[in-house]
Amino acid sequence: MPITAAANAAAAPESLLASLRWRAAIKKFDAQKKIPAPAWNALEESLVLAPSSYGLQAEKFFIVDDPALRAKLRPAAWDQAQITDADKLVVLCVKKDFGEADVDRFVERVSEVRKLPVAALEPYKKMMLASAQLPPERVAAWLTRQVYIALGVFLTTAAALGVDACPMEGFDKDKFDEILGLPAKGWNSVVLAAAGYRAADDAYASQAKVRFPREQVVAHL
Amino acid sequence: MPITAAANAAAAPESLLASLRWRAAIKKFDAQKKIPAPAWNALEESLVLAPSSYGLQAEKFFIVDDPALRAKLRPAAWDQAQITDADKLVVLCVKKDFGEADVDRFVERVSEVRKLPVAALEPYKKMMLASAQLPPERVAAWLTRQVYIALGVFLTTAAALGVDACPMEGFDKDKFDEILGLPAKGWNSVVLAAAGYRAADDAYASQAKVRFPREQVVAHL
Repeated sequence: MPITAAANAAAAPESLLASLRWRAAIKKFDAQKKIPAPAWNALEESLVLAPSSYGLQAEKFFIVDDPALRAKLRPAAWDQAQITDADKLVVLCVKKDFGEADVDRFVERVSEVRKLPVAALEPYKKMMLASAQLPPERVAAWLTRQVYIALGVFLTTAAALGVDACPMEGFDKDKFDEILGLPAKGWNSVVLAAAGYRAADDAYASQAKVRFPREQVVAHL
Repeated sequence: MPITAAANAAAAPESLLASLRWRAAIKKFDAQKKIPAPAWNALEESLVLAPSSYGLQAEKFFIVDDPALRAKLRPAAWDQAQITDADKLVVLCVKKDFGEADVDRFVERVSEVRKLPVAALEPYKKMMLASAQLPPERVAAWLTRQVYIALGVFLTTAAALGVDACPMEGFDKDKFDEILGLPAKGWNSVVLAAAGYRAADDAYASQAKVRFPREQVVAHL
């Protein structure tokens, strides 16, 4: 059943803002501290619930739990300690060779969830196919941008839950793909998010947050 | 002063999840309902606080308040009603012709906020310049992806605050740029976010949310 507005207990703006200000790209995690199951469940679910163009969800999230795999990945990410020390490591991926079969799979899912005949979704499907049949590199770029929405959703959810995270673009995508066997599964790595808790001596968390003043970043027209 | 962990009052995972489930890409906004100032302030600030690669913030957010401008934009966005009816319309933009001057401006800001001599930031600057001096289309694609993080942050913050929003890629970027005079200001439009409150008869909000099952979207390795 859809959730109505009344079911949504809104957070207070000040407390959410405090969470967003507290958030920092943590470089040094406390390797002993684990994310409680309810918070991690919400974080995984936030990835599933992240919006994407047309709702296509041409994305998948691999959580690397195996310490041996994490150790193998670390040299392919400039030997950054987050790879092995954060409680969780998420590899955010985009569908490889996205095409008509993927659109069909999505249309079938819409039909199933909304109890609509597939034929009724034909105009919607045509629109999506027009996007999916652009040159492959444009399709990949478009769907990769959607993965970054999920990254933003994940980081904000983590902050609101008091969980530390670190978004990471500094890694060798080809090596990650190879080590994790992603292309054979139909996926390509896009970006990483480590999650856990900051170490007491993390050098970054204690530094002042650098942002341009709001009047330079937001303008009214 | 940096905010410590203790200052961050974490949200309950269940209430945050309820907000994320309540969220939907609202197509029909109630044109009469306005976002209260504290919530809108937090939403603007969430855009400023959104993380980006190296922290570069090669992005700007134009809020279109002028109803005449909104009316002019609407035909360039498939005549979608959100453009004129949502309380707020954010045009998320990426820096045009990003280059060394932008890196310098950022380094100066880091120096100012963290009270460090610019010379101490030289290695950091070299790394950023290496990224900024890739072929222009790659730089633009990389920085455009960062804008999508901000979109994810904004949509999640809105949901947590009980504010409705709609991300929109379906618009003519060149026409938006021209109508708003963005390139002359140094920016290019990337994606839109309308924000406000759903109309009681919004057809989408009452439909079941379509997502693939979590076991197809999240995998453990």
